[in-house]
This record gives sequence, C-alpha cells and structure tokens, in this order.
Amino acid sequence: MLMIPGPTPVPEQVLLALAKSPIGHRSGDFTKIMADVTAKLKWIHQTENDVLILTASGTGAMEAGIINFLSKGDRVLVGENGKFGERWSEVCEAYGLDTVRVKAEWGKPLDPEVFREKLESDREKSIEAVIITHSETSTGVVNDLETINRHVKAHGKALIIVDAVTSLGAMNVPMDAWGLDVVASGSQKGYMIPPGLGFVAVGEKAWEAYKTANLPRYYFDLGKARKDAKKDSTPFTTSVNMVVALQVALKMMESEGLESIFARHLRHSQATRAAAKAMGLSLFAEDSCASASITAIATPDAEKIRSTIKKHFDIVMAGGQDHLNGSVFRIGHLGFVSDRDILTAVSALEGTLKILGHDGFTSGAGVGAAIAALNS
Amino acid sequence: MLMIPGPTPVPEQVLLALAKSPIGHRSGDFTKIMADVTAKLKWIHQTENDVLILTASGTGAMEAGIINFLSKGDRVLVGENGKFGERWSEVCEAYGLDTVRVKAEWGKPLDPEVFREKLESDREKSIEAVIITHSETSTGVVNDLETINRHVKAHGKALIIVDAVTSLGAMNVPMDAWGLDVVASGSQKGYMIPPGLGFVAVGEKAWEAYKTANLPRYYFDLGKARKDAKKDSTPFTTSVNMVVALQVALKMMESEGLESIFARHLRHSQATRAAAKAMGLSLFAEDSCASASITAIATPDAEKIRSTIKKHFDIVMAGGQDHLNGSVFRIGHLGFVSDRDILTAVSALEGTLKILGHDGFTSGAGVGAAIAALNS
Repeated sequence: MLMIPGPTPVPEQVLLALAKSPIGHRSGDFTKIMADVTAKLKWIHQTENDVLILTASGTGAMEAGIINFLSKGDRVLVGENGKFGERWSEVCEAYGLDTVRVKAEWGKPLDPEVFREKLESDREKSIEAVIITHSETSTGVVNDLETINRHVKAHGKALIIVDAVTSLGAMNVPMDAWGLDVVASGSQKGYMIPPGLGFVAVGEKAWEAYKTANLPRYYFDLGKARKDAKKDSTPFTTSVNMVVALQVALKMMESEGLESIFARHLRHSQATRAAAKAMGLSLFAEDSCASASITAIATPDAEKIRSTIKKHFDIVMAGGQDHLNGSVFRIGHLGFVSDRDILTAVSALEGTLKILGHDGFTSGAGVGAAIAALNS
Repeated sequence: MLMIPGPTPVPEQVLLALAKSPIGHRSGDFTKIMADVTAKLKWIHQTENDVLILTASGTGAMEAGIINFLSKGDRVLVGENGKFGERWSEVCEAYGLDTVRVKAEWGKPLDPEVFREKLESDREKSIEAVIITHSETSTGVVNDLETINRHVKAHGKALIIVDAVTSLGAMNVPMDAWGLDVVASGSQKGYMIPPGLGFVAVGEKAWEAYKTANLPRYYFDLGKARKDAKKDSTPFTTSVNMVVALQVALKMMESEGLESIFARHLRHSQATRAAAKAMGLSLFAEDSCASASITAIATPDAEKIRSTIKKHFDIVMAGGQDHLNGSVFRIGHLGFVSDRDILTAVSALEGTLKILGHDGFTSGAGVGAAIAALNS
C-alpha cells in the first residue's frame, strides 16, 4: 500500500486500460482519445488555454514550462522553501537565467510580502518571470499562490510559472480565474495514473513571450507541441498506453467532480493531521499552510517509523528529503485515496508507534481523531 | 494488428506486468528491478558502458545523447537520408551547433566515402561529432554505420553518436566492439514495450567530452542520470510501470538470445521483401541497404493500400513521411513479431492488392515467396 506523494495508488480500471495492446500514435482512434483527454485536462486546469502532454516526469514538464518562455540572462524570481523550489532555481541557472532565489525556511510558506516588495521595486520591469511551487512536496507546505500571483499581476510584465505537480487534481488551481501563465504537473499525482507523463498548460501571455524566447530546446519545444495538439497529436511518439489509461482516470475524476475531489483531499489532510496531533506527533507544516496532498511529520525516529510500518503493515510512507532525511517522514494522501485508506494508514501508524514505544497518547486516539475529522 | 515501425506489438506477459500497481521509485524493490534491467540493457547494447533510462521518447533520448557532449558552436556532421537524420540536424541547430548536413537521397544509404573525405580533410580536428541514424525509420534504409564509424575512429577526435532507435534489439549494434560513443534508442521498438522510455548508452570518450560540454540541460543531464544509475536509481521519477514491463520483455529477449533475435528480424525482412517483389511491388530501399526492421514500398496507391488493409483485415501499416506521403507505405517487422505475423501480413497484403486490381502476379505468389524466404 503506497501512501507516498507519488507514485500514488492507481485504480484497477486504469491499470487494465494501461494493459491494452498499444495502438498507433498517428491513428484516428488515438486522435479521438487525445481530443477527449485534452478536453478533460482543460477541465481540471479550469482553463480554455492549451494543455500539452509530454512524455516526461513532472520535472521535465516544469523545465519545459520555464525554458520556452525566457531568454538567456532574463531575471526570474524563484520561490524556494523546499527541494522542488531549489530544483527550479537549478533549472534556471543551468540555462543561464539571472536567478533570484526568494527563500523561506523548509516547512514554512513563502512570504508573499517579499514578492510584493521585489516586484514593486522593479521599476525597470526587469523581472521576466516568477516561479512558484504551489504544493511543496518535500515539506507538505502549500504556498499562497493566489496572493503571490496578485503581486505578479500588479507588476504587469512578469509571467507566473507554477509547479502544480502535487496540487493539480487535488487542490484548487483555477488557471483562468487567477490568470496563471504556465502550470506544470505530472501524471503520478492527482491524475491517478503511474509516472511517465507531464502536462504543461500555457496561457496567451506566455505564448507571446514564446515568440522571442531564445533558450534552446527541441524535444521540450512547446510551440511544436501546440501545433500538433491542434490536430490532437504530439510531435514525438507519445506514451500511448499511458494516455489511454489517463482517459479512464480523467473520466473517473469527471464523475467525482472537481469540488468533491478538492473537498476529499482537504478532509484527508485534516484527518491525517488530527490523528498525528492526537498521537503526539509534531506536524512539520502549520495548519495555515498545510498541503491537502501531503502531510509531513517531524520526529527523530522517522526512519524507524517508516521501516516498521513497512515491515508490520506493508505500508510505504516517504522519508524526508535532503537535510530532512531521518527527521521527517511524509504521508501522501493524493489521488486515488479513500476514507478507508486514511483510517488504514492512521491505525497502522498507531500500531507502529506502539511498537516503537510511543506511549504518550491514549490507545485509539489517532483513529478517533481521524474519524471525527472525516465526519466533520 | 500493428505492423508499423513503432509502437510495435507487446507480448501479453509484458502488458500484464504493465498493469501491476506501481511501487515506489525510491524503494528497495524497485532498485532491484533497475539493477536487473540495467544489466540486461548492457547485454543488448553489447557493452560494459553506462546505459541510462530516461522517461522520454526516442527523440528525447537522442537529444540527450547530443546535448550532453557538445558545446555551442561545435562542428558536427549529421548524416541525413530521411526524416530522422533531418531531425537530428534540427536538434543540433536548435542548440547552436555548427551543423554540416551530409545528405543522401531518401531511400538511398549515406555514402561512407563522403564522411571519410570530410573527416580526413579536417586537419584542425574541428569536427567534434558525427551523428548517424543507423536504421532510417522513414525509408527502411540501413546506413553502413560500421564503415562510417571506422572513418570516425581514423579521425581520432570526433565522437560518433548513433540513433539506434529502430536497430537496437533488432540488428547487430555492438557498442564496445565497434567503439560507439553514444547510442540512443526508444522503448516502443525492438524492446517490445509501449512508447514512453528512452535509452542512452554512453562510453568513456563521451564522458570525457561531457566534462567540458556546455550546452544547457537539466532534465536530460546525463551526468545526473549516471550518478543515480550507480545507485540503481534515476534523478527524476521514472516511469515505474514501464520499467517493470521492460524487465519482463528483456527476460524474453534474453531467452531468445541476441543472435536469434537478429536472425529473426533479418528473415522477416527478407520474407517481406521477397513477397513484395513477387507481388510486383517496388521496394523503396535496395537489398544491399535494407533495414531488418522496416520495409518501405513505393507505389502510387500507398494510401489506398493502407486504408484497404485496415478496413478488410484490420492491419495497420505506416504511411510515407513528409514528401513520401501518398507514394510510400511501410511495414514494420520489429520487436514481438513471429513468422505467423509475417505470413498474416503478406497474405492480407495480397488480398488487398487483389481488391485494388493489382493483377500482374499469380495468386499466392506473395505468400509462396515469403514461405520460401522464411525457410531458407
């Protein structure tokens, strides 16, 4: 049982679709699937803009979302409060962008005020883009994208480029309503399919920037992808089985409805957090900035907990990344996760804590708190 | 029934492996699979060098194989006698390389003598790489990689970077014996799995070049991939289900044996070509340069043949690409293809030709010729 922030569990009907014999990626049958999948991707992104499908991980999608709209030496602000924020700074630097890292401590949210100040004081309009990780997978922190984006809009020139890898399909990311320019995501998260596809949604302002952007790219050239997407195709052979599986997953998401999906993730986050608190565990992110997709827990025996819950209950939870390794573990409740899964994870976590001698809480307190939160 | 040069048919046991619930990409279980898969990939490449797994199509793998080992302004010779050769020139130009296109007519092989002359006359050793498409998917032509590579070796400095997308796992590409520096391939070809993974094998001389190569890259940075491959991992979330499926496919290939795989592809090519000739069809590539993976047939009713064989016999063959569209169709006999499949395709093609009024051959001539070739 996978309770990590990706790969996430995949529904049986999606797995069976994945196992169908491949069809030609230039066939009429596949074109119809692409058309349907693209329409549903737009629905999830709450956008009329292009949503392009790449055969790549979320990192590849995000790199494409950066390099198609910028030129060498362009100044960018990158929000950094975890591993993925750091990664986007590394991407920017690899391509020779003038990268300004706007940092917050890991586990804390980015401060929108810092972005406001930097953007307001940029009178020459030299900032070409602001790059924000919405839900920081490494810490379970959600950044206040809506407010930061308002400051970007007040600046007027800079694009906002969003890593929505663990928020899209789990939390509200209304691309058009907020006016987001670029939104990148990956298949093994809210989409309920295995890793292997990346998605980049691109708005008109970003396409304007594309016309003069000069960073080199070929496989990740989104102009090529856009041209072929108009014919419900892709410039290079796409991962056809994954797209066929995605169609099934998107249909399930459509049946559930966006609002219900967001509400479910929020309830699962609240139940997991309530249970952790009731069992005396320390939440790494505060309630006010908790991601609906991932709960990170700070405890010195994080690795012992992970190995014990794996051994005794066959549940996989994620460890801490980089300097958090050993002192944090992370519970993914993202994608195809039910109330039952949350109770299973919480009760197994309680069993694990008891095995490891955590005795500062009443037996059953975790499950009790989770049930109460699920019902509220 | 797919008889196109990718996606190719996928064995049932591979499809079932694809449908397994995903496991964590950082788990011990997955690490073991990566170790096994990597060892088998080295076996197919006939190499002790690194073979790296990318979540990308063959084009992405080839782009990675180019941009990791070169710097802006570097001179490269690119062999161009079809769509894929042209694509690698486009990649080189997108990254600002000094790209010398060494052309041959589509349907003809590259002339090794032209490479010899250009390399011999390069006294300042300004040519940094020679980029060759081994089996040109768009025309069914195999280029004389072995001879061209000998001229590259005589030059001494230039790297040889090979697109082996439709040759690896179908034709002999002995990386170490020939001393190839970079070999790129894609999953939906000889590997018998769906599209979605790319592979790049990299030799020591290329790693030396990597140290000073300055083209920008991040997702496709093979240095990162190499570092993680040493721990049987990948820098970014890999397509775990595809890797699990690949393990099953590679095991099947191991059971068959490399020599048998190559012999099977050659027999299928010869049988398809003999049948086409016996039915009065014109082969686009001459026998001396025929790819073992793809047979291209030149006929003015190419599209009629494709639509008729699809409609009457539910067999998908590929059309001509770019200016060959309408005048060429292509039969893929690559990957999981048996003698029975060849006879099926040939007899359906005969049925199709009869429907379309091709009457210049004796009934049964195609299947007869194919059987004779399979038995010889």
